[in-house]
Amino acid sequence: MNDDVLDNLRLELRRGCLIVAVLAQLRTEYYGYALRKALADQGMDIDENTLYPLLRRLESQGLLVSTWREENKRNKRFYRLSDEGHAILGQLLEEWNAIDTTLNRIVRDVPPLDLAR
Amino acid sequence: MNDDVLDNLRLELRRGCLIVAVLAQLRTEYYGYALRKALADQGMDIDENTLYPLLRRLESQGLLVSTWREENKRNKRFYRLSDEGHAILGQLLEEWNAIDTTLNRIVRDVPPLDLAR
Repeated sequence: MNDDVLDNLRLELRRGCLIVAVLAQLRTEYYGYALRKALADQGMDIDENTLYPLLRRLESQGLLVSTWREENKRNKRFYRLSDEGHAILGQLLEEWNAIDTTLNRIVRDVPPLDLAR
Repeated sequence: MNDDVLDNLRLELRRGCLIVAVLAQLRTEYYGYALRKALADQGMDIDENTLYPLLRRLESQGLLVSTWREENKRNKRFYRLSDEGHAILGQLLEEWNAIDTTLNRIVRDVPPLDLAR
């Protein structure tokens, strides 16, 4: 099996889902490192170089708000979901459920190749 | 709510899933138009300008094979999953289930903002 092809497809599959996971996790406030750890603990590993630009992008789109605050004598930028982010998260979770239903239906209804031919 | 932002996030979420849906559907042989219709019937609408390049890409990556054949007096290119595509589909479905489990866990375990603060 071509591992590069599989890795790329996996990444593509994850990319969109990642945003939903980040938004859902940020219903509670986190700073970057702690968010990354919380997501990893749930089984969603994200590279720093993916997560931090994503957080800035989601903030610039108005889905997150951030505040700087000192914790353990270090200044940290804490992120959480904005009201708009909350509304959009709801829509994305609905979309996710619709896609999941569709995919399960296709997997169930389309006969495997060796039976179909 | 910013509709453009939502639409773009929705598209990102769909993009990766689309490939899984296409591969799963092509366990049975289809030509382009009939595949598009079958996916739409399952609730997965895809634009022609997205689907046809995707089919060519997946074939060039070895996940699909195609043959030209006459049907109703017109030459049509029929696609189906290759052996490699079959193996990769299995892996992607596993990945999908893992992501689904993770997302559901995050949604369930992270308290909504108004309770958490």
